[in-house]
Amino acid sequence: MDSATLARAAKPAEKPIPFDTARLDDLLEGAGIDLLLVTSKHNVQYLLGGYRFFFFDYMDAMGVSRYLPVLVYRRSRPEEAAYIGYRLEAFEHELGKFWPPAVKPASSGSVDAIKLAVEHIRGLGPGIRHIGIEASFLPADADAALRVALPDCEIIDAHFPLERLRAIKTPAELGLLREASERVVASMLAVFASCAPGTTKTELVEKLRREEVGRGLTFEYCLITAGTSLNRAPSDQRLEPGDVISLDSGGNYRGYIGDLCRMGILGAPDSELQDLLAAIDVIQQAAREPIRRDARGGDIFVAAQKLMSASPHRPYLEFIAHGMGLISHEAPRLATNRAYSGYDADRALESGMVVSIETTMKHPRRGFIKLEDTVAVTEDGCEAFGDTGRGWNRAGKPA
Amino acid sequence: MDSATLARAAKPAEKPIPFDTARLDDLLEGAGIDLLLVTSKHNVQYLLGGYRFFFFDYMDAMGVSRYLPVLVYRRSRPEEAAYIGYRLEAFEHELGKFWPPAVKPASSGSVDAIKLAVEHIRGLGPGIRHIGIEASFLPADADAALRVALPDCEIIDAHFPLERLRAIKTPAELGLLREASERVVASMLAVFASCAPGTTKTELVEKLRREEVGRGLTFEYCLITAGTSLNRAPSDQRLEPGDVISLDSGGNYRGYIGDLCRMGILGAPDSELQDLLAAIDVIQQAAREPIRRDARGGDIFVAAQKLMSASPHRPYLEFIAHGMGLISHEAPRLATNRAYSGYDADRALESGMVVSIETTMKHPRRGFIKLEDTVAVTEDGCEAFGDTGRGWNRAGKPA
Repeated sequence: MDSATLARAAKPAEKPIPFDTARLDDLLEGAGIDLLLVTSKHNVQYLLGGYRFFFFDYMDAMGVSRYLPVLVYRRSRPEEAAYIGYRLEAFEHELGKFWPPAVKPASSGSVDAIKLAVEHIRGLGPGIRHIGIEASFLPADADAALRVALPDCEIIDAHFPLERLRAIKTPAELGLLREASERVVASMLAVFASCAPGTTKTELVEKLRREEVGRGLTFEYCLITAGTSLNRAPSDQRLEPGDVISLDSGGNYRGYIGDLCRMGILGAPDSELQDLLAAIDVIQQAAREPIRRDARGGDIFVAAQKLMSASPHRPYLEFIAHGMGLISHEAPRLATNRAYSGYDADRALESGMVVSIETTMKHPRRGFIKLEDTVAVTEDGCEAFGDTGRGWNRAGKPA
Repeated sequence: MDSATLARAAKPAEKPIPFDTARLDDLLEGAGIDLLLVTSKHNVQYLLGGYRFFFFDYMDAMGVSRYLPVLVYRRSRPEEAAYIGYRLEAFEHELGKFWPPAVKPASSGSVDAIKLAVEHIRGLGPGIRHIGIEASFLPADADAALRVALPDCEIIDAHFPLERLRAIKTPAELGLLREASERVVASMLAVFASCAPGTTKTELVEKLRREEVGRGLTFEYCLITAGTSLNRAPSDQRLEPGDVISLDSGGNYRGYIGDLCRMGILGAPDSELQDLLAAIDVIQQAAREPIRRDARGGDIFVAAQKLMSASPHRPYLEFIAHGMGLISHEAPRLATNRAYSGYDADRALESGMVVSIETTMKHPRRGFIKLEDTVAVTEDGCEAFGDTGRGWNRAGKPA
């Protein structure tokens, strides 16, 4: 190569912007936001096209402060975007990981990170009056520094536009969610096959962790019950012959979560257990029935409730459906309860939304029995991810 | 058992308070804090005796908000302490995991968690004027809710007293740090033994992750270099015959971090490489020399700098020492740089402090060569954890 060619090759190729800027700009306009300061790991990951800084993947705390990635995005001006990273993210910048034109891998903590962001904002010129933050993911000290530095700006919570932006998954995202789901279920089936009396719930969870990690997932958690107990925390409780086991685990594949629940048993299920799991399955299938593009979100609940009302198990049955993707519960918001507004219950489902559907039975004699499935909304129906192992998985039987 | 005995057995045994309350009370008095609101995972873990809620071990985000554990501790009145947990932490409460007399596993997000804490504080009676928070670990929305609810209280950052409280490790904590260190090093040696040309840095890190998880650790991160590159991020760079490899990884054992760096090579190290690693080792050993109870913290740097100043490799040698334990960098604060004040450099080391010592060579021709060791301060010297594999670990040679 001549020197001109070398010079061109040395400059990292410009990375395309990995999300729909027009959609984000509309959402920001609707929220009255001129400029976004994104500081949560999951939204930074989304806006940087799947990037999550490996060094702080698990931890946040460091020295006298913490890791705080900051993505600055000015509405309708992606060319003015900046990414403020931790000092060690210079290595990632060298590898060409970032699309924003300005990249400053120079922070050591939360306050200096936000000060670097403010410095960038000050260089952008006039017109920035309303700044959107993630109020649950901006630490108090960084928030205070921001308000002192930009006293004339109004600070607005940007949770809603960011949640909406992520609600419809691309084919690539759906592929990651499918992989995550399949790998979580495969891990569970391996654990069920290896169950034996005497094993503790904690040991079982440790086994699941290794199965998930062995399949390239980040293990997030496992809720677990055994026998007739309704307690879902790992503990020293030992498995006994005949025990019913529920595994409800979240495993993360490249930033996307598989979250499913499957049932196992040490021995053979009797006819009552067969009937109970079948009753749950019927509700799960009924809940999928209305799902398609343009269906009303709340109809998932209507379909499930119809069967539940008629069920002899009504007093100890629970049903919920919620969006999922980068985090375990995200848009569409379908449930209405203390934590959720049910915002999407009366709105239309869209192709590419992903919904987790859960039917739980807290049976007074037989224990905790549950199925949780993941379905993606399509043009004319839905596609379930990791849709195997939904019956009684028997210990000692290879999946 | 008669029914009275049964009733006694059913009530969970009172848990002892797992930290030195007198020490914490003194530190809070020194900081002018009447009541602490602890909201970081690591400090909650410390004050709850090693407890970390499994469901949110990795993730924070959930629905429209996030997980926020809140421990309320009033100075000199541990009997008024409370723990505010997420709804699912009711399972942990049932298992008797919490020592605070009041436990409310009832939150769904950051704002309602802090409101439950405020409710508890209001029931405590007068005398609470100065509230200590973790300003880097209290989200802006929870901080705002706190200030609205308690307008007459002064809000103070409690980082310092909490950091000081954790600085001296108990024998049990030292045992966990020893285990973490040994398991991290054993994992690295297994990875070095399996290295082969053609493997990418990303694949090597994935292999290390599995080795650490297989040894019961939570894998946190791995900084990695190969060949003569100084880039420490995992990437598609492939190993080549003769490559020098550095692995600098953090692995977490029951909440305590092993953080060490070891060197490997594909082939046999030539005499220059032998000399370079030996030069680093000499600095590492010299830095350990002054360590003992009552030694001045900064003397670790003095000992290292003396050798470094005389070294022909001076221009590309770096040395740092920092406390570690629950997080990768914590008290004692030994370094003085942009991020750290060197607070402990002129203070006395104490038995039970744990120090990470790192010497890094960024050799212009031979690449990145580094050793990082963990040493605990004892009455008359120091004890190194995981102090093996410090030479050139050759690929294909079992450790």
